[in-house]
Amino acid sequence: MKTAQRLAYAVMEMPKEDAEEFAAAILNAKTQIHDCPICQNLTEQEVCAICANPKRDHTTVCVVEGPKDVAAIERTHEYHGVYHVLHGLISPLDGITAEHLRVAHLLERIQNEDIEELIMATNPSVEGEATAMYLSRLCKPLGVRVTRLAFGMPVGGVIEYTDEVTLFRALSNRSEM
Amino acid sequence: MKTAQRLAYAVMEMPKEDAEEFAAAILNAKTQIHDCPICQNLTEQEVCAICANPKRDHTTVCVVEGPKDVAAIERTHEYHGVYHVLHGLISPLDGITAEHLRVAHLLERIQNEDIEELIMATNPSVEGEATAMYLSRLCKPLGVRVTRLAFGMPVGGVIEYTDEVTLFRALSNRSEM
Repeated sequence: MKTAQRLAYAVMEMPKEDAEEFAAAILNAKTQIHDCPICQNLTEQEVCAICANPKRDHTTVCVVEGPKDVAAIERTHEYHGVYHVLHGLISPLDGITAEHLRVAHLLERIQNEDIEELIMATNPSVEGEATAMYLSRLCKPLGVRVTRLAFGMPVGGVIEYTDEVTLFRALSNRSEM
Repeated sequence: MKTAQRLAYAVMEMPKEDAEEFAAAILNAKTQIHDCPICQNLTEQEVCAICANPKRDHTTVCVVEGPKDVAAIERTHEYHGVYHVLHGLISPLDGITAEHLRVAHLLERIQNEDIEELIMATNPSVEGEATAMYLSRLCKPLGVRVTRLAFGMPVGGVIEYTDEVTLFRALSNRSEM
């Protein structure tokens, strides 16, 4: 609401040419940007830049809820695999089942591509965990390795102020030094 | 400063008997509470309640910076081992070396008790990591298993808003589903 107001005032203050350009950009976005036919992420190209990049590891697929998660993981500059964007999470309470998500596309990719590992990178929420579990049970019989993001102390976190569930996960998932 | 002011006003509003009791409690705390001779945590008893509890697993020792970390881990109700409180972290810049911490007591415990595993539960800060590394190198040759808290996404966290370093750790420490 506040953002809409701010936007409206900004448009009123724009020179006419800028406003026209802005309007064209909005229309352009809606007509030019579409889902990548492979990973389902948003793109302007026919196939998105990540799927089209031969230097990425196409055997490792990071499964995420939405395009924003792709952006977040790309910011680490450490992930070299590709993605699969579900465009949502399974949520029976909201009537969202696997049919509403890009699950069929994922199964198709497992059958047609040389995928070795699926990394379930959905949020550690009820829906995120349920979706990861569902996809794991669905995809493991197809012969791919399924892994899950690690849960524990965030870097820079403080034990004293960390919630019990996170601390419990950090203790039970401890690793050898 | 604000807390001190609040405390001062609270004392002024107390009945005389309460103020006397409060003053006695402060003196009492300083005379009665001391470090447990085993784990170095604060206690009123000769040996602290955790060290004295035969139901705890005395072969697993969780190494922490301070008494507040013991309280935080106890709140999970899921840890059944015992503790060792260092009373600080190694910090060369502040002139704090292993000699200032209860490291000698820890080495003594490893020699005299039946300790199988040390869990390094120091904070994921520079000092916390350095202390964990230092103790790991010191204690592993004595024949104990040394483990580290898991780092990754905090439970309830959101991938989109998670910092790059945590996300990188969550990806690289991923586990089989």
